[in-house]
Amino acid sequence: MPTLVICGAPAAGMPGASSRLAGPDDAAIRVTDAGLTRGDGVFETVGVHGGRMHDLEPHLERLAQSAAMLDLPAPDLGVFRDAIALAVRSLLDGLDEVPATALCKVVYTRGPEGVEGAPPTGFAFADVYPDVTRERTEGIAVLTLTRGYPHGIGAEAPWLLVGAKTLSYAVNMAALRHVKARGAQEAIFTTSDGFVLEAPRATVLMRHGDQVVTPAVDGGLLHGTAQRAAFEALERHGLACTYRDVRVDELATADALWLTDSVNLLRPIRELDGRAYAVDAALTGAVNEEMLAGG
Amino acid sequence: MPTLVICGAPAAGMPGASSRLAGPDDAAIRVTDAGLTRGDGVFETVGVHGGRMHDLEPHLERLAQSAAMLDLPAPDLGVFRDAIALAVRSLLDGLDEVPATALCKVVYTRGPEGVEGAPPTGFAFADVYPDVTRERTEGIAVLTLTRGYPHGIGAEAPWLLVGAKTLSYAVNMAALRHVKARGAQEAIFTTSDGFVLEAPRATVLMRHGDQVVTPAVDGGLLHGTAQRAAFEALERHGLACTYRDVRVDELATADALWLTDSVNLLRPIRELDGRAYAVDAALTGAVNEEMLAGG
Repeated sequence: MPTLVICGAPAAGMPGASSRLAGPDDAAIRVTDAGLTRGDGVFETVGVHGGRMHDLEPHLERLAQSAAMLDLPAPDLGVFRDAIALAVRSLLDGLDEVPATALCKVVYTRGPEGVEGAPPTGFAFADVYPDVTRERTEGIAVLTLTRGYPHGIGAEAPWLLVGAKTLSYAVNMAALRHVKARGAQEAIFTTSDGFVLEAPRATVLMRHGDQVVTPAVDGGLLHGTAQRAAFEALERHGLACTYRDVRVDELATADALWLTDSVNLLRPIRELDGRAYAVDAALTGAVNEEMLAGG
Repeated sequence: MPTLVICGAPAAGMPGASSRLAGPDDAAIRVTDAGLTRGDGVFETVGVHGGRMHDLEPHLERLAQSAAMLDLPAPDLGVFRDAIALAVRSLLDGLDEVPATALCKVVYTRGPEGVEGAPPTGFAFADVYPDVTRERTEGIAVLTLTRGYPHGIGAEAPWLLVGAKTLSYAVNMAALRHVKARGAQEAIFTTSDGFVLEAPRATVLMRHGDQVVTPAVDGGLLHGTAQRAAFEALERHGLACTYRDVRVDELATADALWLTDSVNLLRPIRELDGRAYAVDAALTGAVNEEMLAGG
């Protein structure tokens, strides 16, 4: 049974109503909430592996960064930290055994539209996640899809919110439907001028020899929280990990490709745009073990 | 007091639960609704002028088109038609006098995430709208902002959902905040290769002599419902109205510019990117009168 905690005072400096547990299937959001009517809010998904939250502080930090990019009031990270802890603890307490993978989704919206001074909305929602062992070991098929933008557009056009993790994910979901209808599991977004961006819900890693790179985060994408943990593990295995701009044509010559995110951790790409890639089961398995042991 | 009608069976072919009036401030949406968590849904805003709904059928038709672009189940337009009628009638019944302007917002989402076979969510929300006489008569200041895409991207990249009216409007709202912080009221989105798209919530009209044009709807934007009514009224005033691709530099030489949408109707642009434009008060006023009389 998933659990839901509604934040009483999600914005910093709000008068302190307490957060509270609510029924996860209860209706808890007004129809006028800008998070719903305008996708006007931000979110994070915290991975919970073997009953332990991973990378909570980087997620909270990124929530605050995304909120700032949307000119939202600063979130009260202490309120969110407590709400996440309560949601996860309640989830685990209600289960007979510790789930391999669970997640806690954190949402922070501008609140009801058209109400002067209406407070933002915040909640944490925890649930068990299906078993992803197969994708982690056997790998996934991926298609590249254009995101329509040129590289670096975010710097000159901040209103495009490139690099903010907003609730406006309709394009991300449409991309996933598009590739699934073509037999793939994931998409990699590319720029109109031939650079690699990210997957709709994950970060891209590329290995040539002992060099692993991920697209530079100043190029207009999210800084992956799991990617940072993956880099640490890969470096322990002797790989040099760096951020830089990655051209789409570099993917074709890679020795290995992965996607990484907070819930699925490291998934090898076994096929990209119809081209087969070797899956390094030993390295991938070892890194996933280390990521699972971390947190 | 706004009114809310929750659709019992918003998708075509769903078992027929009845729609029902709900308290407009009641929480009515689950936190797992994909409309909230992913901006994964579509909407329409129907103008209600002098107590009469305008262009209801074109709005319903566009709701269905947007839903199809998102691979949502076809909405039951009869259910939405009835829900809108009930929401608007209840709004008007609760008021002492007929409001000059009101609106009914219609939302249709994919419904709760992670629940196999969960039905979509649908509702209609009616409310009074503030007086917009001043903007209609004195005009508005506007800034152009890039949308980041090249012209026609929607045809080659349908997952970008260009031309669908989705709930993922965070960029539209960020654009409006950006221009408001610079003293303007509205934005006009442009393509990366110099074509005019649309405003975040309105359609652009441009007059040179007796020719009025609006950007061609196959160029990747919404077909404005109010724009069609504006064209009819402008043609009665002897202007030839056409759809075609419009280059940004054509705006600079225009005799007049307007934005049009279902709630504000026709608003003249008195300033674009710092350049002043003449406001044709007589023509604008006459067209607004005719649009108000129509519906």
